[in-house]
Amino acid sequence: MSGHKEKETITKKKLINEISLRKGVHPNEVRIVVQSFLDCVTQYLKAGDRLEFRDFGVFEVVTRKKKVGRNPKNAAVPILIPERKAVKFTPGKNMKSLIEASDSQEAQVESVV
Amino acid sequence: MSGHKEKETITKKKLINEISLRKGVHPNEVRIVVQSFLDCVTQYLKAGDRLEFRDFGVFEVVTRKKKVGRNPKNAAVPILIPERKAVKFTPGKNMKSLIEASDSQEAQVESVV
Repeated sequence: MSGHKEKETITKKKLINEISLRKGVHPNEVRIVVQSFLDCVTQYLKAGDRLEFRDFGVFEVVTRKKKVGRNPKNAAVPILIPERKAVKFTPGKNMKSLIEASDSQEAQVESVV
Repeated sequence: MSGHKEKETITKKKLINEISLRKGVHPNEVRIVVQSFLDCVTQYLKAGDRLEFRDFGVFEVVTRKKKVGRNPKNAAVPILIPERKAVKFTPGKNMKSLIEASDSQEAQVESVV
């Protein structure tokens, strides 16, 4: 299925219109709620909290350890990349199985061809 | 700041109540929009699309290449982990700088102590 169409980029605006149509809620109201949702997630992550949405997944801040990197243009000189914080998203059970299911469908098509 | 408090887990319910209070929208309405938002994101990812929310970040499906893994209990036997699809979240510019800023604050505190 997904193998036969172009990968599309969905914007916030498009999603807001779709939610409005699906749920019969005015787009302005949807926009306020969706923007507040994204703002809240960002603020909680900034405060170091973890967000868990059942079926969807978990957002959390993790610490990436310091490591030695290399500049591809000058590989002889090592560069110390210091410890830093990063946002990590782990898909929930439902999301994970849906994505993996879409995978196996494509794999089957490929093996037949 | 975040170093001085316990890491909290924020649930969908808590976030819905907070958005309702902040924006003066009835919790039932917020719940419908937030759930529809999460469902839409999942469905678009399943269809192979990419979702881009300015400031917040990008959700997309990536293919992890097949690799040889090891069972920690029986490291002698290699296990082929087949190619699979996974969800990847990349924080946007705004999110990234906020998280990294919270990092440097903590690092400063640590270097003084």
